[in-house]
Amino acid sequence: MNDTICAVATPQGMGGIAVVRVSGPQAINIVARRWNGVTLDNMKSHTAHLGQVTDSQGRMLDEVVITLYRGPRSFTGEDVIELACHGSVWIQQQLLATLIDAGCRMATGGEFTRRAVASGRMDLSQAEAVADVIAAQSQASARLALNQMRGGLSRELAALRERLLHFVALMELELDFSEEDVEFADRTQVTALAQEIEQTIGGLADSFQAGNAIKGGVPVAIVGQTNAGKSTLLNALLHDDRALVSDIHGTTRDVIEDTITMGGTLFRLIDTAGIRHSDDVIETMGIERSFRKLDEAQIVLWVIDGTAPLADIEEFSQQILPHCNDKHLVAVVNKTDLADVQPVETLLGRLLPADADVVAISARNNGDVLRLQQCIVEAAALPQVDNDTVIVTNARHYEALTRARQAIARALEGLRDGLTGDLVSQDIRECLHHLGTITGQITTDDILGEIFAHFCIGK
Amino acid sequence: MNDTICAVATPQGMGGIAVVRVSGPQAINIVARRWNGVTLDNMKSHTAHLGQVTDSQGRMLDEVVITLYRGPRSFTGEDVIELACHGSVWIQQQLLATLIDAGCRMATGGEFTRRAVASGRMDLSQAEAVADVIAAQSQASARLALNQMRGGLSRELAALRERLLHFVALMELELDFSEEDVEFADRTQVTALAQEIEQTIGGLADSFQAGNAIKGGVPVAIVGQTNAGKSTLLNALLHDDRALVSDIHGTTRDVIEDTITMGGTLFRLIDTAGIRHSDDVIETMGIERSFRKLDEAQIVLWVIDGTAPLADIEEFSQQILPHCNDKHLVAVVNKTDLADVQPVETLLGRLLPADADVVAISARNNGDVLRLQQCIVEAAALPQVDNDTVIVTNARHYEALTRARQAIARALEGLRDGLTGDLVSQDIRECLHHLGTITGQITTDDILGEIFAHFCIGK
Repeated sequence: MNDTICAVATPQGMGGIAVVRVSGPQAINIVARRWNGVTLDNMKSHTAHLGQVTDSQGRMLDEVVITLYRGPRSFTGEDVIELACHGSVWIQQQLLATLIDAGCRMATGGEFTRRAVASGRMDLSQAEAVADVIAAQSQASARLALNQMRGGLSRELAALRERLLHFVALMELELDFSEEDVEFADRTQVTALAQEIEQTIGGLADSFQAGNAIKGGVPVAIVGQTNAGKSTLLNALLHDDRALVSDIHGTTRDVIEDTITMGGTLFRLIDTAGIRHSDDVIETMGIERSFRKLDEAQIVLWVIDGTAPLADIEEFSQQILPHCNDKHLVAVVNKTDLADVQPVETLLGRLLPADADVVAISARNNGDVLRLQQCIVEAAALPQVDNDTVIVTNARHYEALTRARQAIARALEGLRDGLTGDLVSQDIRECLHHLGTITGQITTDDILGEIFAHFCIGK
Repeated sequence: MNDTICAVATPQGMGGIAVVRVSGPQAINIVARRWNGVTLDNMKSHTAHLGQVTDSQGRMLDEVVITLYRGPRSFTGEDVIELACHGSVWIQQQLLATLIDAGCRMATGGEFTRRAVASGRMDLSQAEAVADVIAAQSQASARLALNQMRGGLSRELAALRERLLHFVALMELELDFSEEDVEFADRTQVTALAQEIEQTIGGLADSFQAGNAIKGGVPVAIVGQTNAGKSTLLNALLHDDRALVSDIHGTTRDVIEDTITMGGTLFRLIDTAGIRHSDDVIETMGIERSFRKLDEAQIVLWVIDGTAPLADIEEFSQQILPHCNDKHLVAVVNKTDLADVQPVETLLGRLLPADADVVAISARNNGDVLRLQQCIVEAAALPQVDNDTVIVTNARHYEALTRARQAIARALEGLRDGLTGDLVSQDIRECLHHLGTITGQITTDDILGEIFAHFCIGK
C-alpha cells in the first residue's frame, strides 16, 4: 500500500478522451517528474489544469487536463491525480509507460477500490457494489447497486450487529459469575431480539431472489406453437427498446436469449422455439430442452394463435400447464386483427389457474404491445426500488446471510431449550461473524483477492 | 451553435469511469436541472465536485464527479461541463437520456471540435490535428499531430500569407495608377519573395511523403523463399513490441500486414509469402501479386537462407532486384547459427547496389534482431520529429499546398515574362486562397462537413 499505482480508468479502445488515474503517497511527486505546467505542489485539491505530460527525455507526449484530489478527500483516500488525455490507444500506453518509468506501479484489477476499503473510505459490501454499478443494466439494478455503494446494506447490518453485540456481551459477562447463576441478559428480551434479528436477516436473505432477478434480469420464457406469431411478438417487444437489447453470451445456439428493459426492469427473454406435439424422437428431445428452459423461467408468455381451433389450444395447454405451477403465466392471445378471439378467451378462463393473465393483442399494434409490456412488468412483481431500498443482489452476501440465519436459529433453539449463556453466545458469535464478513470487519486476503479479481483494472 | 450539445467523450463500452461532455450556452442551466450537489452557478471554473445526477423525476441515476470549464477558457470556448460517471454502458445511456430530456441535443461527430474552430479557439488545421492525435500510433505521428494541433503548421502558413498579402496589396495598388505605369512593388523583391515562398510551400508539400509514412507507417515488404526463416524473423520482429501490433483491416487475406513501432517510428510490415520460381500458372499469379505489394514498399527486407546454395540465391536475386530500384534494400542473411554465411555476404556484395544493406543474423538471437531493427529504422531515414517540427501529414493539406505551389509558380513565370501586376496578382491571390483553405480562413460548409464527418462523436 506504500507504492503509487496507475491505470487507464476509462473503457478500452480509442475515443475522444481517456483518463489515466494515479493514486498513492507519491502520486504528486511522480506525476511532477513528467509534467510541464502549473506547479503541482501548489495545486489546490479538486481543481483542473491544462498542461503537458512528457517522456523521460522531457519530450511532450500529450496535452492533458490534470485533476488533483488530495487525500483523504479522494476515491481511494490517498492523493489521486487524474490525467484526461487524447483517447489514442498509443497515447494511453505511452502515458502509463512514462508514469511507470517515473516510479508508478501498474494497478491490479480493482486496486483503487481496494485501497478505498483499506483507508476506510468504504466497507467491503460498498466496494462490491462499485463493480455492480459498473455492470448495471437497468434502472432498478443501478439503483440497488448505488444504494449498496452508498452504504444502505452496511447501515442495516451495522445496526443488527450492534444490538447483537450488546446482548452477547451481557451473556458472556454471566460466565464470569457462573457460580452465582445470575442472568444479566433477560432471556425473554434476548429471545425477542433474536427472533426479530432472525426475521430481518431472513428478509434480507429472501430478498436475494428478487435482487438476483433485478441484477441479472427476470427470466421470461416465450412458448407457443410455431405459427402463433411468436417471432412477430418478440420483435415487437424488442423493437421499442432496441438500444438496450444485447446478446447474453454462453447460451446454447438453439435457444435465443435477449435482454430488454421494460418499465425500468431488466428482463431476460428466452425464446423457446418449436414446442409442438410430435412422435419424432429427435424433435421430442428438442422439445424437452425447451421445457427445461421453461422450468427456469419466472414468467411464462404463452403465445396463442387466436385463429386456431379451440381443440388445438386445449390440447397444447395440457403440455404447457404442468410446467407453470410456480410461475406467473401470461396467455397472449394474438391476431385480434384477424379473428374474434372471444371464444379463445372463454376457453382459457376455464383452463388456466385463477392468477394467470390473459391479454388479447395484435402483435402489429403498438398500443397492444405496450399493454402487454405493462402486464409483464406487473407480473414480475419486483419490489419498487427507491433511493433507500435494501435488497441483497450478491451471492456472497446471500451465503453469509443464510449462515447467519442458521446460527441465529440455533441460538433461538438454545434459548428455547434453556441452554446456558456460553452455549447460546457461541451461536450468536457465529451469526456476528457471518454478518461481519459481508461488510469486511472479518475478512481474509483470500476473500479480498477473490472479490477484487473480478474488477476491471482502473477501478 | 446556440443549442447545447452532449455526448460520451470516452471510448465506447464498459470501464471504471466514463466521461459525458456538455457544451453550449445552456450547459450550466441544463445540468443544474438534473443535478443534486453544489450550486453550479457559484461553482468556479476548472473545479471538480462530487454529486448526483437525477432523472426527470428526481431519482438518482449515478454519483458523478462534475468538472466545470467556463467559456472561453474551455475546449470549445463555450461553457463546458464534464460528468465523470461510473462506466456502465447503461448509466452512460441514461445520463445522455436525462440530459437530452433536460434540453441538450446529442452532438454530431467532431461537433465539440467544430465549435472550438467557430469560437476561434483553434483553426481548421489544428482541428484536423485533434483527430490525428487520437488516431496516433507512434511517437513521431503523435508528436507531428500535437505540433500541428498546437499551431505549428498554422504559424508557418500565417507567416507566408502575411508576406504574400503585403506584396499583392502593393501590386493591386498599381491598378489604381495604371495610367501612370508605376511599380509600387519592386519586381526584383517580389520575384525573390515568390521564389522563397515557392520553396517553402514546395518543402511543405514534399514533406507529405515522409508525413504520410510517419502517420500511416513506413511500408516494409518482407520477401524471400519460403524456407528462408521469414516467419521466424517476422515473429521475432513483432514479439518485442507485441502490445503495439495490430491488424490493418481491409487488406487481402493472402498478404499479411502488421504494424509495429520500432525506434519511435511506425512501420507497416507486409509479409509477401510465397515468392519462388514456378512454371505453374496460378502460382505465378500469386507471385505477381506479391511483386505488386513489393512495388508499394519503401523498404524491402530480402530474407535469405544462409545455408542455401549460392546459385539459388543469385537466381532469386534476378527476380527481386529489378523491383528494388527506388527502394531501400536490406538483405537479411539468416541462420548464422547453422552455417558460415561469409560466402553469401561476398556474393551479395557483388550482386547488390552500393546503397543496399547486408545484415547477417540468427532470427533466434535477440541481439541480432535488435541490430536488424536499428538498420530498418535508419533505412526509413525519416526526419527527426521534435516538438516544433512541421511536416504535412494530411492529404487535404497536401492537395492545397500543391495547388498553391502551382499558382506561385505561374506567378513567378508571369514575373519573368514581365506580365502586368493585375495578372501576376491573380496568381498570387489564388496561392493565398489555397493556403487559406488549410487553416480555414477560406472554407465552405461542404469542406467542414467532410472534415468533421470523420471525427468520433464526443470529440
